[in-house]
Amino acid sequence: MTHPSETLPTIRLKPKANARAIRHGSPWVFDNELVVDRRTKTLTPGAIARLEDAERNFLALVGVNPNSRIFARVLDRDPDMEFDEAWFAARVKHALQHRETLYSEPFYRLIHAESDGLPGVIVDRFGDTLVIQPNAAWADTLIAPLVAALKSVTGATTIVMNGTGRARGLEGLDEKIEIMEGAVDGVIPVSMNGATYMADLMGGQKTGLFFDQRDNHAYAQKLVRGKRVLDVFSHVGGFGLAALAADAASITCVDSSAAALELAEQGAAAMGVSDKFTARKGDAFDTMAALLAEGEKFDVVICDPPAFAPSKPALEKGLRAYERIAKMAAALVDDGGYLGLCSCSHAADLEKFRNSCNRGIGRATRSAQLIHTGFAGADHPLMPQLAESGYLKGLFYRMMP
Amino acid sequence: MTHPSETLPTIRLKPKANARAIRHGSPWVFDNELVVDRRTKTLTPGAIARLEDAERNFLALVGVNPNSRIFARVLDRDPDMEFDEAWFAARVKHALQHRETLYSEPFYRLIHAESDGLPGVIVDRFGDTLVIQPNAAWADTLIAPLVAALKSVTGATTIVMNGTGRARGLEGLDEKIEIMEGAVDGVIPVSMNGATYMADLMGGQKTGLFFDQRDNHAYAQKLVRGKRVLDVFSHVGGFGLAALAADAASITCVDSSAAALELAEQGAAAMGVSDKFTARKGDAFDTMAALLAEGEKFDVVICDPPAFAPSKPALEKGLRAYERIAKMAAALVDDGGYLGLCSCSHAADLEKFRNSCNRGIGRATRSAQLIHTGFAGADHPLMPQLAESGYLKGLFYRMMP
Repeated sequence: MTHPSETLPTIRLKPKANARAIRHGSPWVFDNELVVDRRTKTLTPGAIARLEDAERNFLALVGVNPNSRIFARVLDRDPDMEFDEAWFAARVKHALQHRETLYSEPFYRLIHAESDGLPGVIVDRFGDTLVIQPNAAWADTLIAPLVAALKSVTGATTIVMNGTGRARGLEGLDEKIEIMEGAVDGVIPVSMNGATYMADLMGGQKTGLFFDQRDNHAYAQKLVRGKRVLDVFSHVGGFGLAALAADAASITCVDSSAAALELAEQGAAAMGVSDKFTARKGDAFDTMAALLAEGEKFDVVICDPPAFAPSKPALEKGLRAYERIAKMAAALVDDGGYLGLCSCSHAADLEKFRNSCNRGIGRATRSAQLIHTGFAGADHPLMPQLAESGYLKGLFYRMMP
Repeated sequence: MTHPSETLPTIRLKPKANARAIRHGSPWVFDNELVVDRRTKTLTPGAIARLEDAERNFLALVGVNPNSRIFARVLDRDPDMEFDEAWFAARVKHALQHRETLYSEPFYRLIHAESDGLPGVIVDRFGDTLVIQPNAAWADTLIAPLVAALKSVTGATTIVMNGTGRARGLEGLDEKIEIMEGAVDGVIPVSMNGATYMADLMGGQKTGLFFDQRDNHAYAQKLVRGKRVLDVFSHVGGFGLAALAADAASITCVDSSAAALELAEQGAAAMGVSDKFTARKGDAFDTMAALLAEGEKFDVVICDPPAFAPSKPALEKGLRAYERIAKMAAALVDDGGYLGLCSCSHAADLEKFRNSCNRGIGRATRSAQLIHTGFAGADHPLMPQLAESGYLKGLFYRMMP
């Protein structure tokens, strides 16, 4: 793994590019910021290179990918750094210390890419099992020392490499999913906020588990004791099982995925509260319409839909969908009850999302107090200069009589 | 208190005023939105009036104040409503139910003005003692049924009317502070997040207690076990005593008010952890500079200054002060430690405040992860259409090596 810095290829910023931003911690260099010649075009995706400013001053060692709009990702400011197991171990240790401060059990996002110093790399921890998403070419190249460091620092025995999802496509990387170490025996029980979730790590996004809603789940738990709770877009029971762990009287989980609802039901069973659990399989809009037609009301309704506005072109349509959800959900909440509305859309910022929710509530001819605004948990830290990019928002309302 | 609606004075919106906003829940009518004639000018501050749109359609019953820019505050949409004890009791009950859902002990903001349906009225609860801030003329006029309702709904035995502060000045109301019921015996112990705070309710803002930071205090508690904590602008020990309740190794409270620090020390004594408590009286900037000069470092540093940017003219200067605080505080945090930075400035919105903090951290040549963004607690609900007005922000960072 040794590479005396001077033998590395060099890439150089254009005179107009923002070298100052790089010096101040910006982690990315886009292809249009670089002087591109024949040599840079032939760089291998995942190679390490020296990044210089237009005056040939060294800026950072970077991982490059000529196939990505993000041509270079800053890895280290030390020109002589070697990207061996020790380098990865130091970053993993720093990340682990933070999670161990916050969480009493080993279930969390261990590495959150750029903000944990490993650009493009996501690692989720499920006890002794780690799921790695190497969403940048350099991490594919250096997967061996990364895996070695993860094992030695955490003591994990099973390592899954999940190379599926949108991010790898943008990098021009192939899709693959592979067990690199150990074995995955079906479904893993995951403990979070006192609830037990069942995660099917090999089943992909449809039945995996997201840690990012932990704080919003915990907030909802303050509102549900003894209450009838509706969890729309429940996935494997995120809000619903959290509510049961906080002594909700009953939960109804609505999702279009039978596999996800099956895992939610298994979670309720593992918690010994199957009697309080109801699943309704179906399209969320249709099911809410049916519940309204049946005259159903709930004390607490929470909607955590998939990203309706993942990108700018989808924004207007996505905001209309959030408004429609808010309108239907608000109508299902009893006076004095609570309504939680979430968005994981990058393109819908907090203000736009809140406006859509407020409009929807108004269109249901309901009035409400906004009592809480929550974001992704602390195992999903943000780079301060990219804080706008916080994609996850949770709004909690109380309905007025 | 009866007033058949037709005998009430009427005020009318100008044709260009936004009647639709009022219909959709906007609680205020500004003086420039009204047709002002000789009769409206002579309305008594605090009188109840009928608000009509330009076409003479009834909109709402309002409390008026010709001496305020907010000429009318919407009280009820029912033209025949009477503002008697029962009317107040219904609103207080709805507000109380929410607080009792959220908090196991009777220490909270019970009424948060417009969003709890009592425009301009603030009521804080300290066990059996309620402190009312009637910051609108109509509430001065109807103080008797308000107090009767508060007593009957909550069972409170002591009622303090605290008519000091900036808000009454803007309404042209006189300053007064008065014990309306019962007696206040010096300092009241207040339980919040497992800590004991000492509140001097008659000592005014300098030594009273703010409930709005409850959730941010609770967040800080997750970070402090076994840690050395610095609480700058500690007031009566807000973050510091919360940290001690969460097993911090030690706290150092910095404040310029000897009276506030004395109460913080009494709180630590009441919690039986005086040995872990240190007070440093002095200007916060000077004291941080002294700590830096002494080479001190802390595991966790939290700064909760007074509003440096309370209004738009003070914005630029206020933002520079926040940046300066961030810079000094960041330099006092050990690698891997945590930094909490708060703002209660209306004029500095989340983005502006965060930018100032980010710049300050950068100027300390430190890099950091942003791990949490918090706001005022749920006993300070917002009207959704005024959500921009959320004044309290708390940013939590983790310092990188």
